[in-house]
Amino acid sequence: MEIRFARRMSRMQPSSIREILKVTENPDIISFAGGLPAAELFPVEDIRHAADRVLSELGSRALQYGVTEGIPPLRDHIATEMAVRGVSCAADDVLVTTGSQQSLDLLGKIFLDPDSVVLTENPTYLAAIQSFQCFEARFVAAPTDDDGIDPEAVDELASRVKPRFLYVIPNFQNPTGRTLSASRRRALYEVACKRDLIIVEDDPYGKLRYRGSTVPPIKSFDEEGRVIYLSTFSKTVAPGFRTGWAVASKNIREKLVVAKQAADLHTSSLDQLVLARYLSDFDNPKHVERVRTAYGERYAVMEAALAANMPPAYRWTKPDGGMFLWLTGPEGLDSAALLKEALAMKVAFVPGADFFPDGSGHECMRLNFSNSAPDLIREGVTRLSALCARHAEKAVAL
Amino acid sequence: MEIRFARRMSRMQPSSIREILKVTENPDIISFAGGLPAAELFPVEDIRHAADRVLSELGSRALQYGVTEGIPPLRDHIATEMAVRGVSCAADDVLVTTGSQQSLDLLGKIFLDPDSVVLTENPTYLAAIQSFQCFEARFVAAPTDDDGIDPEAVDELASRVKPRFLYVIPNFQNPTGRTLSASRRRALYEVACKRDLIIVEDDPYGKLRYRGSTVPPIKSFDEEGRVIYLSTFSKTVAPGFRTGWAVASKNIREKLVVAKQAADLHTSSLDQLVLARYLSDFDNPKHVERVRTAYGERYAVMEAALAANMPPAYRWTKPDGGMFLWLTGPEGLDSAALLKEALAMKVAFVPGADFFPDGSGHECMRLNFSNSAPDLIREGVTRLSALCARHAEKAVAL
Repeated sequence: MEIRFARRMSRMQPSSIREILKVTENPDIISFAGGLPAAELFPVEDIRHAADRVLSELGSRALQYGVTEGIPPLRDHIATEMAVRGVSCAADDVLVTTGSQQSLDLLGKIFLDPDSVVLTENPTYLAAIQSFQCFEARFVAAPTDDDGIDPEAVDELASRVKPRFLYVIPNFQNPTGRTLSASRRRALYEVACKRDLIIVEDDPYGKLRYRGSTVPPIKSFDEEGRVIYLSTFSKTVAPGFRTGWAVASKNIREKLVVAKQAADLHTSSLDQLVLARYLSDFDNPKHVERVRTAYGERYAVMEAALAANMPPAYRWTKPDGGMFLWLTGPEGLDSAALLKEALAMKVAFVPGADFFPDGSGHECMRLNFSNSAPDLIREGVTRLSALCARHAEKAVAL
Repeated sequence: MEIRFARRMSRMQPSSIREILKVTENPDIISFAGGLPAAELFPVEDIRHAADRVLSELGSRALQYGVTEGIPPLRDHIATEMAVRGVSCAADDVLVTTGSQQSLDLLGKIFLDPDSVVLTENPTYLAAIQSFQCFEARFVAAPTDDDGIDPEAVDELASRVKPRFLYVIPNFQNPTGRTLSASRRRALYEVACKRDLIIVEDDPYGKLRYRGSTVPPIKSFDEEGRVIYLSTFSKTVAPGFRTGWAVASKNIREKLVVAKQAADLHTSSLDQLVLARYLSDFDNPKHVERVRTAYGERYAVMEAALAANMPPAYRWTKPDGGMFLWLTGPEGLDSAALLKEALAMKVAFVPGADFFPDGSGHECMRLNFSNSAPDLIREGVTRLSALCARHAEKAVAL
């Protein structure tokens, strides 16, 4: 029996992160690998009450099919939240999605033909690469530094490679933890207008800032409707709901809605209603404050442990928020090989190369600090540092 | 500002059903248009208790990210349910999906290149056409009669057009309500083996049989792993959960998992857990029995009303289960035009042409009987019959 799969499948591989996560389900392993929020902070009791109220008061309406765009009270809440973030929009401008991941899939569907170019940061979010790869995109990565992606490089690349869109994560980027500076956001928007470029601004982590002041989203400058803003409740409430959103101008949103109809009709009615009820009846800002504080502490613990233990050939980013930092080893380091030894020492991370559309970054590692208690962070960094010291010597010897 | 969308978007239109559903949200309209289950029968109290137990007992684990394949207790339940349906499979053979609709999207992704052929019944499920269209499929429809799709025609077409797969809904088909006979199921599987054809067997309605005896799924004959079986909890519990499943052989399932990772990571953890808990703690077979009985009564009311009121030029199918029957008017009837007048008379249905990949079927209408109370069914059929009588005269006059 011979099965003929679509051409695109030859480019699609199982996510290495999700494969690593299966290994790290072993509770003996200290995992800096996943992108999991701290489950012990989830507002479980509040959500239990919200679920009970929704099912008691709305009854069967909570369980029926719904409209593709999302339920009105949740879209209202999102519009209000967007105003807090500096973006003025109406509830009608919002599309509720099945996690932010679905927005990436839908954007791939509506914008990408085989060999269409997507412009990205270098490195960028692994699962975005996967979603766009599914539509046989070609990736062109623009240089980035500690202030994020370089607008001048984007200008040059946009005029040369005619991308269908630019994909950026301006706040506490995944995987580097870096934040795109305010002046570069403005410059990037100007480049987009000049080059008639669509910007996809993915902001899952923006609310998780534990120091410094908020930088306005690129979408806040958007007078032309060329920025598509994505976010999620996965980090501010809980990821198990698989509920996120996209804010986009009408012509783009209508296409997203058609694509979503074909993808899953609509996002779970019950999840949307429970979320909306939780957000209206309970103190989510206070909850987010608790999460931010905890992540800030965990970040500080990881930073201090790295400073105390890592050999001099290693350097790392110092994020102002989010869930990740980015460790860069000496040239020649093979972090995928290092991971194998790390797993034997019961500590895990994600090798950097997976985040580089151009296949570089072998000397890099992404470390998550949101999902381990401070003691485990110290112990894990100690183990990892010992291993890194050995590999630094090898890299020098080469 | 000029936006360049993907080529596929030129083929993708908003679902006419979902557009009609927006109109029929008006409670004055008697709607035979949607495919909505009867919300008043949903086991709301049982689900409320199940949700409370899940959140009380599992706590934060109920709200964390999960594995793409689905949560173990739900996959276990599905494997047991598959045995009830005559298919022997393990929990590992099951992929939980975000509604059955997502399976259609994922199948399109893994199998379809531009201009790949999908073989279907004529007519077939509208939203399947939309999902596959999104991957620029070409549709070839095989002739169907009261016993379902014709296996000999499939044999001839399969050898000639080399489809990537055959898509069939063997039980109480959407839109016609017809059931594929047992002997044809066997013959179809034999044709599939002979022509090396993949069969996608979509079975959302199989549990809703209100008369006659169950016909084994095509998947129950499948020794070669060439049948992909799809189903859903939307009709047996509630659609708001957006939770369905696919059973497929390993090589196909692995591709579906990779595609699902890129689409939404996984289906809502909370929905899966609440469903699994409801199914283990409460009497779902008894609930399904109640639903079946109610739909059987509603069908009988619609059938009797049609027999009493419809002019002789109209005929209709007499389904043994499911949610729809299929009304065929005289040649030359334009059911889309008839719908406009019907809406003015506050009764709605879906015009037939939307279900025909080849654009025929203008004289047909799909009528849903699951979502209206018996009195409203009688009144709605009376209004519709009066209108149909007028159109029959016009069609004859043409």
